[in-house]
Order: sequence, then C-alpha cells, then structure tokens
Amino acid sequence: MVLIGIDVGGMSIKGGITTLSGEILYKATVPTRSGYTQEHPITEDIVTLIEQLLEQSGKPLSEFYGIGIGIPGAIDSKNGVIRYSNNIPMQNVPVVEQLHEHFNLPVHINNDANCAALGEYVYGAGRGYCDVLFVTLGTGVGSGILIGGKLFEGREGGGAECGHMLLYKDGAPCTCGRRGCWEPYASATGLMRLTREVMEKHPESQMHEIVAKDGEVNGKTAFVAARNGDAAGKEVVDTYIRYIGDGLVNLANIFRPDAILIGGGVSHEGAYLTDPLQKIVDEENFGAAFNPRVIVKAASLGNDAGLLGAAALVMSDRNNA
Amino acid sequence: MVLIGIDVGGMSIKGGITTLSGEILYKATVPTRSGYTQEHPITEDIVTLIEQLLEQSGKPLSEFYGIGIGIPGAIDSKNGVIRYSNNIPMQNVPVVEQLHEHFNLPVHINNDANCAALGEYVYGAGRGYCDVLFVTLGTGVGSGILIGGKLFEGREGGGAECGHMLLYKDGAPCTCGRRGCWEPYASATGLMRLTREVMEKHPESQMHEIVAKDGEVNGKTAFVAARNGDAAGKEVVDTYIRYIGDGLVNLANIFRPDAILIGGGVSHEGAYLTDPLQKIVDEENFGAAFNPRVIVKAASLGNDAGLLGAAALVMSDRNNA
Repeated sequence: MVLIGIDVGGMSIKGGITTLSGEILYKATVPTRSGYTQEHPITEDIVTLIEQLLEQSGKPLSEFYGIGIGIPGAIDSKNGVIRYSNNIPMQNVPVVEQLHEHFNLPVHINNDANCAALGEYVYGAGRGYCDVLFVTLGTGVGSGILIGGKLFEGREGGGAECGHMLLYKDGAPCTCGRRGCWEPYASATGLMRLTREVMEKHPESQMHEIVAKDGEVNGKTAFVAARNGDAAGKEVVDTYIRYIGDGLVNLANIFRPDAILIGGGVSHEGAYLTDPLQKIVDEENFGAAFNPRVIVKAASLGNDAGLLGAAALVMSDRNNA
Repeated sequence: MVLIGIDVGGMSIKGGITTLSGEILYKATVPTRSGYTQEHPITEDIVTLIEQLLEQSGKPLSEFYGIGIGIPGAIDSKNGVIRYSNNIPMQNVPVVEQLHEHFNLPVHINNDANCAALGEYVYGAGRGYCDVLFVTLGTGVGSGILIGGKLFEGREGGGAECGHMLLYKDGAPCTCGRRGCWEPYASATGLMRLTREVMEKHPESQMHEIVAKDGEVNGKTAFVAARNGDAAGKEVVDTYIRYIGDGLVNLANIFRPDAILIGGGVSHEGAYLTDPLQKIVDEENFGAAFNPRVIVKAASLGNDAGLLGAAALVMSDRNNA
C-alpha cells in the first residue's frame, strides 16, 4: 500500500508516490500556471499530475491509501477548501470535492508549512519527539506546530503563523501590514537585505567578490564570507542568527516543545547555524535553570519535506479522525 | 459530590469546596508563611486548610471527587511536584505524594495561571469555546492555553509563558533576564511605571489629585483620569492598551484561538479596555480579511478563577487521563 503526496509551490507542483516509511518511489512535476480561475482551478493541474504518477507506477487505485496535498496559504483542512492563497492567487477552491470527481480515494489538504512540519516529524529530524515546532526560513517565515504528534492549526487553520510575531516594534515592514514582525528579519529575504546593507558599508568585504562570481546576493553570500574569516560577513551572520534566536526563545517560552527544527535553504549551514542558535535558546529561555531544554536542530528532508508530509497527511488525518 | 480547590498565592492560600457547576459552598484561608523548607514544606499549610474546609462542611471524604491545587511557578503536573517557585521560594516539593499521606483522595496540581485559565474556561468567560487563551495582567503577565478544552502546558509544564515573549527588543528589563518582554509593558506593574513616567511630564494632570487622594499610584489611576477626560491619563491608557494589543495580535497569529480572555485587576475596566483591544486584534491580525475573528473578552470570575479552576483540575485531569 502506498500514498500520493503533492506539494504545491509558486513555480511548480511536485508529486510523488511514497511508501509508508517515507521512500519516494515515483516523482513527477507540472508547472504552476499563473491565473487560475473558478472555471479553471489549480485542481486541473493536480489531476494531470496525479494521472501522470498513476501511469508511471502502473499501480491500481486499490493500492493507494489516499492523496495528501500541501498548499501555501490559508487552508481549511477540515472542509478541504483552499480559503485564500497569496502566492498563487486563488480563493475558496473546494479542491477535495473537485478531486473526488476524478479519484475514488481519500483526499487531505493542509498548508504547505504544516505539511513540511509533519514530514519532518514523521520521517525527518523530528522523529522521536512529542511536541515539535518547525520553522522554515525562505521568502517568508513559515511554521508548523506538532503537539503530541498532531498538527495544531488554530481555528479553521488560521494559526501557526509564527513568522507574524512582532519582535521589533516599528521595525521593517512586513507583508502582513505590521512593522517589525519576525518574518522580514529571519527570512532568507531578510538575510539578503541585511547582506546588501552591510556590503554597502564595507567595500573591502570579501562578499563583493563572492557576489561578482555568483552574479547576485543570495542566502549563502554572508555565510561563505564568514567561514572565510571576512569580518563584515561575520557581522551579517551574527546579526541574522541573533534575529532568528530572538524568535526561537519566544517559541520556547510559549510552547516549551521538545525540539525546534529549522528548515529552508539556510538550514544547510548545519551546526554553523544551529550551534549558536542552541546557545541563545539555552541561555535566554524562561527559567533556563529549572525548565527542560529545548533542542534546536536543522530539518533533514530538504525539498522533499513538503511532499513527504503531504503524503503523511493521509495517515495522520486517518488516525486522528 | 463536590470538589476541593486550593489557590496558593504570595500572601495567602485560599481554599474552597465547590460543586461541579462552579458554586463555592465553603471558603477558608490561611496565610502563606515565609521560609518553607524541605522539612516544613507548604504542604503543611495546605493540609491545615483542607482540614478546616472538611470540618466546616461536615461532609465525609466519600463525597469528594478530589483536591485540585494551583501554585505559582514551574509545576510538574504529571508527577505532582512543585519544581520551582520564585514568588514563594521552594524547589522540588512532591506535594501530591505528601497530601496522599493525609487524604485518601485524588490530588491534582498545576500552575496558578493555568488553573485560572481552566476556571474561566469551565465556569467563566471562556465557556462555549474550543480553543481559549487566558492572559492575566498582574504583578507579571501570566497565561494559560486551552486547546480543544485541554490545558496545553508544554514539556514538563514549562510552556505557556506568553508574558516572556520579546516584543520590544532592547526595551525594559524583564524578571526573566531578557529586555523588552511583554511582561514589563503589559503587566499592572508596567502600567504603574508608565503612569508615574507620564505624571512626571504632566504636572497639570488630574492623575496627581487622584494619587493624592488614593495615597499611591495604582492600576486604576490613569483609567480614572482618562474617563474624566484628562489628556495625560488618556495618553497612559492608550499607550498601555497598545502594549497589550501588540502581544494579543501575536497570540492571535500563533494560536488563532476562538477567544482571548483578559484577567487581572485591569479587566474590571470592561469594554473601556476590551473594545480598543478587539479593534487592534481585528485590524492587525494576519490575514484579517480571510481568517476567522479572534474574540477579545474580559475574564469574568475575578479572584475566584484560580480556586474554581483548581477544583476543575480534578475533573479535567480525570477525563483526560
């Protein structure tokens, strides 16, 4: 018996057929189109992708437990509706109902960050813990919360928006309308903005050479320079880690989870990123002397977390129904 | 059948015998002593209080479902141990085990803010909701989190410390060691500090007369002046509400609960406090246009919330065991 996992992104929709132990047997991708409408919803592309996967595998429907889908935005997982998505403009798409017209299988949907969190929990760096927070540092700051192994989503899936936690009153503008949220500081976007700012002040920094070679500032620029001993690069990395750490301490105090997992491209920096974050959380969490430690770890599934977590939704929702 | 609820405070330990519907039949109080030791733990005073209550009621032990106790600090509810309390200095007190030597009844303990949250949920302003946050603005900022009607405490009860959420980087010092937590701004202590600061700048403010009459600055000073049209009083109230609101928006984004309840003395200001807070949460929460509304309400049980919630622990823990 196998699962279908679908990970909807801004550029492409990735699909996979996975085993219950998290092995991806088949993979396929279709591009995300611009301009989905109520008449031609994203569901059409998801159907195409699933049909491709089914054909690739040659397996009959009876071998599938179901289909799980991760989608960016406000997802009503209970009713199977994409309530609102910002990245891929769409509103009120009853995607589960629409898929049931094509496939006689259980279909489960959830927010993409929630799926990635579940993926890491079931198959990745979150295995073996009870309460886990997953924070993914990309264009924005996404987050997923697992309490007792179950996704906590808030009312109608409107919670777990930890990136929209005010940390720096009157600070940098956030896409949510407030100023000073965690997101514009701890996201890869924030890291690149900070890198550019510090580069401007430091024409002697090695970061200029790195950018000349790479063609652009990216999330690695400052980390590469810092590892080479560049002082300005180190300044960027230290400041950025401080920003991430500020938010992690808040989450440790609010949730006191067993572990917080860091995802997104920057998580590939490994211990160079997570060691100083662990130190900040260890030193600054509330009642550090008498409260249990909160582990900070890099996520381990990379780009597959969303797909694997979407597939895992099928089992998770089934068991929690 | 009835319950015993005990609410441990810095000045006194309050006890009550309550019905399952939240009626308090008998009440008693003993003073909190200073300097509890491992040989003479707080348990001794709790035993005295329970014996008083039993005598007052004349009921046999067989009519009691159990004993619930709310205690400030880090409480290991699962193992029945006061891990650490700051207000009433004590460490590693196995209070449940100690009480079992005196009473053949189930005994449940939890943090005092958690108990007050549960009390409001079962008997007060939180009735009828699924996910509820309770925030109490006193000397500090306490909080309790109910998810699906169950207390969420974090690992070994170390979570739900929402007062220790950084909001104003490098701001006012907090008892937890960080600067700029919500607590020094949104607590009654913070309100009084702000009141004094604004009074100094405004010798013409009516607040000076109010303080001369009351003998001291308290949590009502600015509210009384503001209601009388005093501009400086209004400034204090507006700024203070802004501080509370900043944190409430964070909690709305992270938890998206059905309701957030405001407790503590300041909650008696009623709609004068909660209307502007509701407006801030409505306008500034993430995805306000498409996410469900988070209700902001004053708590309704006042000083009895802790006692009633402690009693309710007996039923809550029994049902969730």
